[in-house]
Amino acid sequence: MTAIHTFTFTADELTVNWDDASISHLQAIWLRDHCQMPASRNPDNGQRLMNVTDIPADIAIDDVTYENERLVVKFKPDGHRSEFDPDWLYRNCYCLNPQYDDRSEAHKILWHGGSFTQNLPRYTYDRFSNDEKIKLLALQAVRDYGFVLLDAVPCESGQVLKVIEQFGFVRETNYGPLFEVRTKVDANNLAYTNLGLGCHLDNPYRDPVPGLQLLHCLESSTEGGDSILQDGFMAARVLRQEDTEHFATLTQNWVNFRFSDNEADLRSRVPFIEVNDRDEIVKVRFNNRSIDTIKLPPRLIRSFYSAYRHYAEILEREELQISFRLQPGELILFDNTRVLHARTAYSTGGNRHLQGAYSDLDGLSSCLNRLESAG
Amino acid sequence: MTAIHTFTFTADELTVNWDDASISHLQAIWLRDHCQMPASRNPDNGQRLMNVTDIPADIAIDDVTYENERLVVKFKPDGHRSEFDPDWLYRNCYCLNPQYDDRSEAHKILWHGGSFTQNLPRYTYDRFSNDEKIKLLALQAVRDYGFVLLDAVPCESGQVLKVIEQFGFVRETNYGPLFEVRTKVDANNLAYTNLGLGCHLDNPYRDPVPGLQLLHCLESSTEGGDSILQDGFMAARVLRQEDTEHFATLTQNWVNFRFSDNEADLRSRVPFIEVNDRDEIVKVRFNNRSIDTIKLPPRLIRSFYSAYRHYAEILEREELQISFRLQPGELILFDNTRVLHARTAYSTGGNRHLQGAYSDLDGLSSCLNRLESAG
Repeated sequence: MTAIHTFTFTADELTVNWDDASISHLQAIWLRDHCQMPASRNPDNGQRLMNVTDIPADIAIDDVTYENERLVVKFKPDGHRSEFDPDWLYRNCYCLNPQYDDRSEAHKILWHGGSFTQNLPRYTYDRFSNDEKIKLLALQAVRDYGFVLLDAVPCESGQVLKVIEQFGFVRETNYGPLFEVRTKVDANNLAYTNLGLGCHLDNPYRDPVPGLQLLHCLESSTEGGDSILQDGFMAARVLRQEDTEHFATLTQNWVNFRFSDNEADLRSRVPFIEVNDRDEIVKVRFNNRSIDTIKLPPRLIRSFYSAYRHYAEILEREELQISFRLQPGELILFDNTRVLHARTAYSTGGNRHLQGAYSDLDGLSSCLNRLESAG
Repeated sequence: MTAIHTFTFTADELTVNWDDASISHLQAIWLRDHCQMPASRNPDNGQRLMNVTDIPADIAIDDVTYENERLVVKFKPDGHRSEFDPDWLYRNCYCLNPQYDDRSEAHKILWHGGSFTQNLPRYTYDRFSNDEKIKLLALQAVRDYGFVLLDAVPCESGQVLKVIEQFGFVRETNYGPLFEVRTKVDANNLAYTNLGLGCHLDNPYRDPVPGLQLLHCLESSTEGGDSILQDGFMAARVLRQEDTEHFATLTQNWVNFRFSDNEADLRSRVPFIEVNDRDEIVKVRFNNRSIDTIKLPPRLIRSFYSAYRHYAEILEREELQISFRLQPGELILFDNTRVLHARTAYSTGGNRHLQGAYSDLDGLSSCLNRLESAG
């Protein structure tokens, strides 16, 4: 814990010089809005009890004193009094602390085909379920690398839903709570044939897109049908490095995706590459099968296709991909807003049977945040 | 159906002059990418069988002829031949057709407190369930106005989940498949007390945010506890009209939201007002209780609070709100990315009991799209 060295204040701002030589400049409106007193915050759940409009428009600092290991701020014109724990101020000050962010490229470990010189992130399901330290490591792998493999998941139908219950909630869709990936007659989706599938993300035609996908291998005796993964954040970063105009074209021109069959007609209008307020990559979407008719303004068609083709070429580069064969009992859990998956074509002899399901990132993140706080 | 009047072509572009005097300029790459032949598209599900990288980089038009009521395009250098149904070209041409968009302000009917001079959009549950025309009208109300009321929903516990099954899927969260809204001892959330709640959207700390919320009234014999709704897209538009800088500040500076209790630690980094590539509003978030510590760069604190206060003031304007009292058996279904809700404080005498649940917009949109195509 860092202690206060000295502090000064004006009507506008409290300045704290900390023992470690760092400095906080805290504006009156921010201090008042972050008052931690019981009248301002519910002591049980920390929820804010006031609205920003309850604060006088001309809020200012009247006096600051140090009493009982608390910085006591008296405000004017309303005379409101707030006590701040210096440690809370140090850990929450906007001058010293970054925002929370578990989604952008800035907080991920990007990878390519050669990144995993040792093993892929992989844990046994029994330890994942029964050892919170292992669960923490596995969920961190999903957050940081975008995927994790679980071994020795019981080869029972429906098990994929039980895995989701360990960290979050099932996202049911028109494909059901879970979906069967094996060759079907008259398949409504190419995924349910034995064709190879290029690198793609699932369900870009769905808004919101399911943030997590699980694929659990129950049978695998065909020739081919290998699994391929690719870091879509890395691919988008490579695009930006090779051509910033192409990157900007794909972030700034949203397109339609669509999937329709006898039971569903799912349509979205979203970007291939989604960035945040800092122009950092936060989400990627790509699925050549379900890109709907491109209806950009005529003047943009040429530049869009140039960027789109460039990005699609990057997504085919084998040096950016890892490949492995899912064996019965293995399950892959991956971030469907980041990690593309593909499979090679497979023979009609033998059987290949996966069960898949979707979940959302909020539940996993919440479970991970709690495990990290406890750890 | 509009017929072709004349057509001409160069290596780069096919130009079609239609009978209604409209003109399509279709570039070679677009035509090749939108080839509808069985080798390019799965005839059963319409999914694209090729990748954009399969198209030669120097693709060009070699010849165009009109045969058997089809425009036949021969490409070079690969000699690929595509037949286009003129009606398909007319309906899909990027010169003549807008993108699909059911989310942005451009495709919504924005409203304020005086907009509903007649009745609110309201249907009986029996007809919603049994008459596809009524279901279509109700789901269109959710898309266009952001909400609909259903009457005479059986006052049975769990019924709210059955309503969701009529159009989509339940989004289960840490609050359960459904949540009880009534006064609780030691409530983990202020929603479960008898305090009034200002206009807010639910779960901005969740990414992805649940796109739909349902509240089903089972009991209502307290004083107070009236329901208030507000069009957040209208509020954001008013902000933009009154101060474009404030609007830009809230779209361009993302903030953290957070909710934590003994079972969950949900955190997000998202904007108050989310816009698309055309700077049109597509999503709003606001919940004074769960805005986490503001950790923007010091130089932005003052301008952020100025914009934030302005927006919060607009959200308190009664002329932008509608209010009504939910009676037992009534259910409100609303777009949680757009419509804010609030409730007045209520007495401790009498009982107020709602059951709530979340769903996502993809399922409702899909159901609506299918009903519209059938209608």
